[in-house]
Amino acid sequence: MKESLSKASLQQLFTEARTHNGFLAKEVSTETLNSLYDLLKWGPTSANGSPGRFVFVKSAAAKEKLLGAVAPGNIDKVKSAPVTVIIAEDREFYEKLPKLFPHADAKSWFAGNASLIESTAFRNSSLQGAYLMIAARALGLDCGPMSGFDPAKLDASFFPGTSWRSNFICNLGYGDETKLYPRLPRLEFSEACQIL
Amino acid sequence: MKESLSKASLQQLFTEARTHNGFLAKEVSTETLNSLYDLLKWGPTSANGSPGRFVFVKSAAAKEKLLGAVAPGNIDKVKSAPVTVIIAEDREFYEKLPKLFPHADAKSWFAGNASLIESTAFRNSSLQGAYLMIAARALGLDCGPMSGFDPAKLDASFFPGTSWRSNFICNLGYGDETKLYPRLPRLEFSEACQIL
Repeated sequence: MKESLSKASLQQLFTEARTHNGFLAKEVSTETLNSLYDLLKWGPTSANGSPGRFVFVKSAAAKEKLLGAVAPGNIDKVKSAPVTVIIAEDREFYEKLPKLFPHADAKSWFAGNASLIESTAFRNSSLQGAYLMIAARALGLDCGPMSGFDPAKLDASFFPGTSWRSNFICNLGYGDETKLYPRLPRLEFSEACQIL
Repeated sequence: MKESLSKASLQQLFTEARTHNGFLAKEVSTETLNSLYDLLKWGPTSANGSPGRFVFVKSAAAKEKLLGAVAPGNIDKVKSAPVTVIIAEDREFYEKLPKLFPHADAKSWFAGNASLIESTAFRNSSLQGAYLMIAARALGLDCGPMSGFDPAKLDASFFPGTSWRSNFICNLGYGDETKLYPRLPRLEFSEACQIL
């Protein structure tokens, strides 16, 4: 049986971690982005389908393209971040199931079933987006997730003629603590949970 | 700036963690379920809306009710687990925004906008379900998430006349390593990611 992680680790992942609005002028290396994917990819998804796709927007040209789709209130945050990742979903994720789930014909469970494809891609790419954020914190990075953007515009800019669609976007970098707002409350156990 | 967690911690959270199909006969205490919520609740959600709801099914009577909605292939797994949590979403989550996001009239962004309510509740309760799974692993628990169940039947049994709807279900407990299948592959960085 496994032990609990240390209190310091739980703080870094959850209890003291914050959504960051401003970032220090420190690059996030390609090596770190590879390490990030090599953690998050192991998180569970339905039938190992792994529909999440991750576009790390780093260059000035790609940032400019992204800013054209971002809500006004998020523009400065995106500009401040060394990387903004587009968490996307591949609506043809089931084409990879012969590789990812080789012991059954899992592709046939999805092909042609648009509503199952849509709900599975959305649920599981969201799970993978959460794995990305927690994995980033585990590596010492900070996150700033956002859903304030125009998905149709973003998809037309980044994913024309493909089966990829944006889910949400997330700044990554080393947070500037001086730009934090006071922490917001959460629901009590009794408001959000039941034990039956 | 924060350091990376230890390799042993990264293994416990991601690289060595497995989806479990069978569980040891060891209870998960109410105290542990409270600790679990007290970690996961801090994960970020859109406008701090926290739409996820968590029903920890422990008693024989509640388990029996749940089994009536579970797909045949998942019945033995659910029976083996000391707790199965229903990760649900509250379609009226925006009613809590005056508490959760007090500095703006965030409730008015959602009220009456059915499609925004639905996508926000689904995306963010999925994120919170992922926080739950990673927090469980951080506490030394094992998980077995499932989407093989009849959501209409489950909702009719557990949430009649309420605004709660099931998203997915997840076994929690102390995994029986002898019941693990060989680990499945994941997509390469080049298949799932781009750096632009």
